[in-house]
Amino acid sequence: MRILVVGASGTIGRALCFELERRHDIIRAGRTSGDVLVDIRSRDAIARMYEAVGEIDACVCVAASGAMDDFDTLTDAQLIENMQGKLIGQINLVLLGRPFVSERGSFTLTSGIFADEPWRGVTGGAVISGGLHSFVLSAAIELDRKQRINVVSPTMVEDSVTAYGHLFPGMPPVSMESLIAAYVGCIEGGRTGEIIRAYRSFEDFFSKGRCV
Amino acid sequence: MRILVVGASGTIGRALCFELERRHDIIRAGRTSGDVLVDIRSRDAIARMYEAVGEIDACVCVAASGAMDDFDTLTDAQLIENMQGKLIGQINLVLLGRPFVSERGSFTLTSGIFADEPWRGVTGGAVISGGLHSFVLSAAIELDRKQRINVVSPTMVEDSVTAYGHLFPGMPPVSMESLIAAYVGCIEGGRTGEIIRAYRSFEDFFSKGRCV
Repeated sequence: MRILVVGASGTIGRALCFELERRHDIIRAGRTSGDVLVDIRSRDAIARMYEAVGEIDACVCVAASGAMDDFDTLTDAQLIENMQGKLIGQINLVLLGRPFVSERGSFTLTSGIFADEPWRGVTGGAVISGGLHSFVLSAAIELDRKQRINVVSPTMVEDSVTAYGHLFPGMPPVSMESLIAAYVGCIEGGRTGEIIRAYRSFEDFFSKGRCV
Repeated sequence: MRILVVGASGTIGRALCFELERRHDIIRAGRTSGDVLVDIRSRDAIARMYEAVGEIDACVCVAASGAMDDFDTLTDAQLIENMQGKLIGQINLVLLGRPFVSERGSFTLTSGIFADEPWRGVTGGAVISGGLHSFVLSAAIELDRKQRINVVSPTMVEDSVTAYGHLFPGMPPVSMESLIAAYVGCIEGGRTGEIIRAYRSFEDFFSKGRCV
């Protein structure tokens, strides 16, 4: 397959490309590096990227992480700004990418655990990820030419614990291996309209009063 | 309690006010009628409304319904326009309303079934409702002074079947009585951070291959 990976130089992107390029042709896209440059906050930049890339069999987005926020001073302007990349940007990857993705091709987007599991300081990220989940449910029944769409909702990945672990004390990380398997399953499998929660929920992790 | 009902003249709003005014002081807000006028698409209008109303014990929003959309021609601009009322507007009711809501007071918002159950032509409504669900999970752990927040996610209400039933064939409606009970439980009960899905899911409704 010919696979476009948006956010290819990020922590998840590098590991995903490493796995995918064993079997597929990879086109790396990123804001500052890659085979093609794109800032997904810009609708025009996404359109130009697709024109440059041409037909593909899969588009995977592992780009864009939202800023943390202070709820006491949070404004709608901050929320809308935060949405531009991870929510509107990923939606535009789908809306503008449809003609370039082959029949039975797929979109795989990235949300995050805060859609379903609240944490302080990430209201913006929660709104984005929750909106993205529902977008994927809808898009899956709207897309034609048997195109598929799924979204992977990661928790913090093991490789990021050193950098971000202090922000999320007590949050069990997911291994990079499991996370990459989630993306590969979406790209190479047949599922559509699914939200792949790449973590165990807090309740499941500490079920019945003991760690499992 | 002193309760602000935003969208008081709508189908749900009228029934909700009828029930609440048996025990509480109701302030009706709406775009074209009510004790106070407000268009929740405008941040300034919401701020003015709260200044005019003063301290309240509960804010309930049953206003704003999203436009339907055509996925084949859907644009990010349409989605953002659609978000202004039901998503950003309801978020602003919370962000700007906090100082006006009493200790242990509450916010009750309204999303919709399409957050979780896809249907054609409502991608915008889905994104809005999904984002709202995650906002409420976050806000519940961020609000101070023991303020509470919940969201009711209705399906089509029985009273609307004549007007909208043809758009959603096969969708089981919820009775107005059950739906109003969901709002009353949020306002007068102690729950917070909950998504009250005021419907049975499609799978539950037709479980085990037969109607239940």
